[in-house]
Amino acid sequence: MSASVAVTALPFHREDGEFGKLVILCRGFAGGLLVYRAPVADLRFVLDSLLEAGELARLPRFSEYSADLAAAVLTEADRFASDVLAPLNAPGDRQGAAWTSDGATTPAGFREAYQQYVEGGWPLLGIDTAHGGQGAPQVLSTAVEEIWCGANVAFMLCPLLSRGAIEALLIAGSPQLQAAYLPKMITGHWAGTMNLTEPQAGSDLGAIRTRAAPAEDHYLLTGQKIFITYGDHDLAENIVHLVLARIEGAPAGVKGLSLFVVPKFLPDAAGNPGRRNDVRCVSIEHKLGIHASPTCVLAYGDTGGASAFLVGEANRGLECMFIMMNAARLSVGLQGVGLAESARQRATEWARNRVQGRPVGVAGDKPLTIIRHPDVQRMLLTIRSGVEAMRALAMYAALQLDRAHALPDAGACAAALARGELLIPIVKAWGTEYGTELVSLGLQVHGGMGYIEETGIAQTLRDARITTIYEGTTAIQANDLLGRKLMRDSGAALRSLLDEFDAELTGYRSGGGAAAGSAALPPIVAAAREGLSQLRAAAGTLMPQLRAAPAAAYAVSVPFLRLCGIVLGGCLMARAAHIAARQLAAGGPERAFMRAKLQTAAFYCAQILPQALALSRTVRTGGASVADADVELI
Amino acid sequence: MSASVAVTALPFHREDGEFGKLVILCRGFAGGLLVYRAPVADLRFVLDSLLEAGELARLPRFSEYSADLAAAVLTEADRFASDVLAPLNAPGDRQGAAWTSDGATTPAGFREAYQQYVEGGWPLLGIDTAHGGQGAPQVLSTAVEEIWCGANVAFMLCPLLSRGAIEALLIAGSPQLQAAYLPKMITGHWAGTMNLTEPQAGSDLGAIRTRAAPAEDHYLLTGQKIFITYGDHDLAENIVHLVLARIEGAPAGVKGLSLFVVPKFLPDAAGNPGRRNDVRCVSIEHKLGIHASPTCVLAYGDTGGASAFLVGEANRGLECMFIMMNAARLSVGLQGVGLAESARQRATEWARNRVQGRPVGVAGDKPLTIIRHPDVQRMLLTIRSGVEAMRALAMYAALQLDRAHALPDAGACAAALARGELLIPIVKAWGTEYGTELVSLGLQVHGGMGYIEETGIAQTLRDARITTIYEGTTAIQANDLLGRKLMRDSGAALRSLLDEFDAELTGYRSGGGAAAGSAALPPIVAAAREGLSQLRAAAGTLMPQLRAAPAAAYAVSVPFLRLCGIVLGGCLMARAAHIAARQLAAGGPERAFMRAKLQTAAFYCAQILPQALALSRTVRTGGASVADADVELI
Repeated sequence: MSASVAVTALPFHREDGEFGKLVILCRGFAGGLLVYRAPVADLRFVLDSLLEAGELARLPRFSEYSADLAAAVLTEADRFASDVLAPLNAPGDRQGAAWTSDGATTPAGFREAYQQYVEGGWPLLGIDTAHGGQGAPQVLSTAVEEIWCGANVAFMLCPLLSRGAIEALLIAGSPQLQAAYLPKMITGHWAGTMNLTEPQAGSDLGAIRTRAAPAEDHYLLTGQKIFITYGDHDLAENIVHLVLARIEGAPAGVKGLSLFVVPKFLPDAAGNPGRRNDVRCVSIEHKLGIHASPTCVLAYGDTGGASAFLVGEANRGLECMFIMMNAARLSVGLQGVGLAESARQRATEWARNRVQGRPVGVAGDKPLTIIRHPDVQRMLLTIRSGVEAMRALAMYAALQLDRAHALPDAGACAAALARGELLIPIVKAWGTEYGTELVSLGLQVHGGMGYIEETGIAQTLRDARITTIYEGTTAIQANDLLGRKLMRDSGAALRSLLDEFDAELTGYRSGGGAAAGSAALPPIVAAAREGLSQLRAAAGTLMPQLRAAPAAAYAVSVPFLRLCGIVLGGCLMARAAHIAARQLAAGGPERAFMRAKLQTAAFYCAQILPQALALSRTVRTGGASVADADVELI
Repeated sequence: MSASVAVTALPFHREDGEFGKLVILCRGFAGGLLVYRAPVADLRFVLDSLLEAGELARLPRFSEYSADLAAAVLTEADRFASDVLAPLNAPGDRQGAAWTSDGATTPAGFREAYQQYVEGGWPLLGIDTAHGGQGAPQVLSTAVEEIWCGANVAFMLCPLLSRGAIEALLIAGSPQLQAAYLPKMITGHWAGTMNLTEPQAGSDLGAIRTRAAPAEDHYLLTGQKIFITYGDHDLAENIVHLVLARIEGAPAGVKGLSLFVVPKFLPDAAGNPGRRNDVRCVSIEHKLGIHASPTCVLAYGDTGGASAFLVGEANRGLECMFIMMNAARLSVGLQGVGLAESARQRATEWARNRVQGRPVGVAGDKPLTIIRHPDVQRMLLTIRSGVEAMRALAMYAALQLDRAHALPDAGACAAALARGELLIPIVKAWGTEYGTELVSLGLQVHGGMGYIEETGIAQTLRDARITTIYEGTTAIQANDLLGRKLMRDSGAALRSLLDEFDAELTGYRSGGGAAAGSAALPPIVAAAREGLSQLRAAAGTLMPQLRAAPAAAYAVSVPFLRLCGIVLGGCLMARAAHIAARQLAAGGPERAFMRAKLQTAAFYCAQILPQALALSRTVRTGGASVADADVELI
C-alpha cells in the first residue's frame, strides 16, 4: 500500500486541501506500516532448530518433508499474505460483511482473494495425500495459519471453519457422504461451517434444542443456530453446515446430540450445487471486531425442514465435534499469536519512526525516536518475547499431533497424542488471553495515535478480543485442562513433560557444550527451572483438590492454565537461548538473529517468568477465597 | 430504559417480525442491565468508615461537611447519573459526535443533559465557596466524578476539561481574566479545554510549536493543536481554550512555553459571547471509543492570529499546566474505576441471569445461572475487589489533597500534599491499566454476547482503552512517580506512607480489639504486610538505581508503579476488612455489606496481592534485561 492511500483514508475535511501536520506524521507512519510481513525467519528457526521438525522426514507419512520445502511454503505464504490478504484487512473492517434477505456477503475483494487462495492450493496444504492433499505436517500448516491470522484474521476464519467440517467428515462421514462433499470441500470450492451455539446453548452444548426428524434416507432439521462464523457468505459455490442437533426421542443432554451435514445447496445428480435447502441466514451480528466475517443467525426448517444427513452414529455427535474443536482450538490459539505478531510489527515500526522526547540519562538535546525510551523497549520486548514463546508452544503442540499420527510405535503415538491434547487448551487460552494483552500493549506503544481507527492497531485489538471467547472460553479451556486432560491420567502427561524439560535444562547447566561459555544463558536456565518448580508445586496442590474440593480447584483453574503457558513457554525460550548461544559460540550464521533471540529470552525470563511466583501462590492458596464465598454477596 | 428499547436496537432483519430466541435472551438481559446505578453504599463506606472523612468538618474550610451531606449529594448524583446520563451512553456511542465546517456537535440529548447538569449546580460542587462554589472537599467530588464516569464517560469529559481550565485561571489568571471568564465557567455556562498536544508534541511538550506574537494588550496565536477533547461542541455558549504556546523569541523546550486563554467567542462589553475568534475546528477524529466526545483538530490563526491572553508569567506555562494535569490525572484514574464499576454491574447482572451448564461437583441435572460456576465467581470477585481497592486508593489520594489545603499546620499540609502528589500517578496509571483489564474481564463474563455491540459491554471496553493514554500515558505516570515524586524527597513520602500502613496493620494483629476474633482477618493482614515488604524491597533496589543506572530503573518503572497500586490498594482493603470484622463482631448494621466487604478483601489478598511477589522480583532483577538490550535487535 502506498503512503497516499493512508492519506486519503484520513478523516480530514479541510477544504483548502492542506492536511496539516498530523497527516505528515501519518504519512511517515503509513509508509512503513501497512504491509504485514510473515515472521519467516522465526518460523523457520522454530521448525528447524527449536523443534527439529526435519526429523519428521524419517517417518513414512512425512517422508517428503524437508526444511527447504518448509521454507518454500513459508515464503509463498508470506507473499500471499502480504500481497493479497493484508491489504484487504483494514478495508474489510471498514466495509464489513453485509446482509440482505438473500443472505450474507463479504466486503469488496474478499471473493477474489478467496479464489486466489483456492487456486493457489492453500486449502490442500495440511490434507492427507490419500485425500488429494499435500500432506504437510501440522507443525508446518500451523506456521502458515499463524501467517494468515496475522494478515487478515477475518478472512482466514472461513478456511478455518471449513477445515473443521472436513475433519469431521473424514473421521466420521460415510463413504457416500465423503464422496458427495469432500472433494469440493478439500479444494476449497465448497466451504464448511460448524453449527453448535443456540441462544440457550453456548458453553453448555447439552442444552441444544435443534431437532431432527427421520425422513426416508435422511432427516429433516428444524431449529435456530446463532453465532455461526461464515454461516453464510459469497466466497464459495456451496456451504456445507455441520450441525449438532437432537434426533426426535434422543436422550437429554450431550448424550443425545447427533451430527448432521446440511448443505446450503443439495448436490444434484452431477454433484453440483442443486436445489436450495431449507436453511436461511436471518441476520448477522454487529460485533466489536472481525467485521468482515459474517457471524450469522441460521434458521433451519422454516419451510418444513432442512434436508440433513447423519454423520457417524446417532447420539455420538459430540465426540466427533470434539475432534473438530481440538483442531479449531489450536487454530484459535494461533490467532492470538498471529494478531500479537501483527501488533508487534506495527508497534516496533511506530517506535522506530516516531520522534518524541529524550530518555533520562541520555546526553544531547534533540528528541529521539521513542524506541530509545526504556519503557517503550520494555513494552516491545514484552510483546516480542510473548509472541515467540507462544509461537514456540503452539508449534510444539502441533508437532506432538504430527508425531501422534506418524510414529511407528503405538505407545509413542499415544504419549505424543496425550501431550498434544494436554497442550491444546493451554495454547488456545494462553495464546488468546496473553495475545490480546500484547495487542493492547502494542496499541499503547502508539500513544494517542493508537486510539485513532485509521492507525490500524485499534482494529487488531477489536479483532483479537473475540479469541478468548469463541471455540470455548478461557474458562472452558481451563475446565478441559483440569477436568479432562489432567484427571484422565492423574497428571501423567503433564509430569512427563515437566520431567523432560527439567532434564533438558539440567543438561544445559551441567554439560552445556559450546554454549556453556555464554554468560547470558545461566540466569535464563535458572529462571526456567524455577518456573518449572513453581508449576510442579501448583500442580501438586491442585491434583488432589480436583476430587476433594473441586469448587476450590476450579476457582484457580484459569491461573493454573496461565501458569502452564508462561512456564512451558519459558522452557522453550530457554531452549531457544541455548541454541542461539551455541550457534554464536560456534561462529554460526545469522548472528543478529541469534543475538536477538538470546536477548529476547533473557527479557522473558527476567520480566515475564516471575509471574510464575504469583500464579503458583494463587493456585496453591487462592481457591478457598472463592469456594468459601457467599454467592449472594459476590 | 425499558426492555423494548433494547429489542428495537437489535440488528435483526427478519421480515416476519419474529425475532427468534436471541432477542428473548437479550430482552431478559436488557431488562436488568441498561440502568447504571451509582455504588452509593460503597462510596459512603469509603468516605465515612474507611477514610473517616467526617474528620474534615473539624477544619474551617470544610466545616459544613458531614456524612449526611455527603450521602445526600451521592444520592442526588446517583439519580442524575441513572436517570439522565446513563440512558444517553449507548445512543451517544452509536450516533457519535459530528463535524461540519461550522464545527463539532454532540449526539442527540447531550445538550439537554448538559443544561440539566448546569441547572443542577453540579459544576459548582468542588469549587471553593469564595468563588461561588459549594466548597465540597475533593474526596467527595471525586466520589461524584466516579459516578459520572461510570454512567457516561464521554459526557463527563466536557466538565472534566472545563474544571482543569478553571483551576488554571484560579491559580494563575490575572484579576481581569478571572473576572471576564471565571463566573460563567464556574457555573458551567461556558466550557473550557486544555490544549497541549501537537502532531510532533505528544508526551514531549517541549516540542510545541504554536507561536504567540505580542499585539497591544494581548497576543496573536498561530498553530495547530490535535487530540483536543471537547475542543469544539454545542453544549455551552462559549468555549475557553487554555493553550500552551511559545512567545516569539522564547527559549526552546519546555522552558519557553507560556499559557494563554483563547476564547472561541471574545466577550463583548457586557461580558457575553461576542466576536468569533480565529480558532477553528478543522476535523474530529474517528476513534476506537468515547464516540460522543468530539476529539478535535484546532487551527489557530488561519486568518491572521487568534486573540490570546497570557495566563501567569511568560515562559512558565508548564508549571501551571502541571497543576491542572495533576487534577485531571486523578480524574482520569477515576474513569478507570468508574468504567470498571459499570462493567462490574453489567457482568454481575448477566451472571445472575444467564443460565448455562452446571458446575463440577454440584448435584442435580438442571442448568444453573453462570454465577454458580467457580471461574465466573473468580472473575466477578476479581472485578469487584479491584474496583473497591482502586476506589479506596483514589479517594484516599483525594483526601490527602483536601488535607493539604485545609490543615492548620504548614508542615502537615506539606506532608499531605507530598503524599497526595505521590499517589496521583499511581491512581491514574493503576486505575486505568487495571480498570481496563477489569472491563475486559467483565466482557469475558458475557461470553459470546459480550462481543456483540448491542450488549453494551463492548462499548465500555472501547471507552476505557483511551484512559491509559490521555493525560499522560502509563509510562509518563511512571516517569513522574520515579523521576519527580520519588527523586525529589529521596522516597521520604513513600516511606512514611508504608511505615504508617505497616504500623496500622501491626496494630490489627496485636491489639485488634473486637475484630481479632474474626478468622478471616489474620490471613488478609498477613498478605497485606507481605505486600508491603515486597514493595519495600523493590523500592530499596530501585531508589539507588535511579541515579546510578537510570536506564535499568526506568525499564521497570511501570511494574514498580503497578506494584505500588496493588499493595497500597491491598492495605486499604485490609483496613476495610478490619472495619467490617469489627462491625460484624459488634453486631453492627449492614451485615450483608460488611460480610461482602470481608469476603472481597479475602479474595483480593488471596488471588490479587500475590502479584506483588512477581512485580517485586521483576523490579529488583528485571531492569538489566532491557538496559543491556541492543535497540537494533528489539
